[in-house]
Amino acid sequence: MKTLKTNLACLIIIIFMMPLYFCGNDKPQHKNQMVRLAKLVIDSAQLDSYNAFLKEEIEASIRLEPGVLTLYAVSEKNNPTRITILEIYADSAAYRLHVQTPHFLKYKTGTKDMVRSLELVETTPLIPEMKIK
Amino acid sequence: MKTLKTNLACLIIIIFMMPLYFCGNDKPQHKNQMVRLAKLVIDSAQLDSYNAFLKEEIEASIRLEPGVLTLYAVSEKNNPTRITILEIYADSAAYRLHVQTPHFLKYKTGTKDMVRSLELVETTPLIPEMKIK
Repeated sequence: MKTLKTNLACLIIIIFMMPLYFCGNDKPQHKNQMVRLAKLVIDSAQLDSYNAFLKEEIEASIRLEPGVLTLYAVSEKNNPTRITILEIYADSAAYRLHVQTPHFLKYKTGTKDMVRSLELVETTPLIPEMKIK
Repeated sequence: MKTLKTNLACLIIIIFMMPLYFCGNDKPQHKNQMVRLAKLVIDSAQLDSYNAFLKEEIEASIRLEPGVLTLYAVSEKNNPTRITILEIYADSAAYRLHVQTPHFLKYKTGTKDMVRSLELVETTPLIPEMKIK
């Protein structure tokens, strides 16, 4: 009878602790995120080549790095040399790993004479759990 | 025997057509997407109130409108009054519906005296199928 009571007490504790466990797992994941806007201007004569480098780098990062949550790159329709990238990393450790990967270094070296300007803007997301449907 | 051959021929045609069907469904979905950057500057005295309006509007849009694929809003850490929103709509019809919804109109009316400037930049995504993990 004592064992039954102990088991029941354990079960009740586990049931009440479970939501805390899941919340605990979920919140820090978003809390530590690094969310940034990279704003670039590219040499118009080398734009196609730059875009090929960027596409290859992004596809490799998303495929190979669990901590790279998105690299959503857009070019302005009225001025395609102006590029903005929404970068989301799971945390700063994921970002530090990212900039040491062979695919990132290939992009950085390959495009260094194509980039006219680069501005990195640290940001705070309004809704950190936002996705793309 | 003739029926069996006909059925077999049909089955083969269906099997070979299936990838085309799925590709056909997938590509136009991305081809018609409207991807935009909204760049806003908000009156600093009304920033908290503005952010509350924006958050409510985005959450309703994502929940109620299948054609609103994301509204990813960020504020600059060094200047939180500067806000950028990555807006992705399934197509221009989804966008036209969006701007007529009660939640959008509530946001637009409620924040009209809080917005110092608004620039809407039409863009082309480098990788239209990109998501957020």
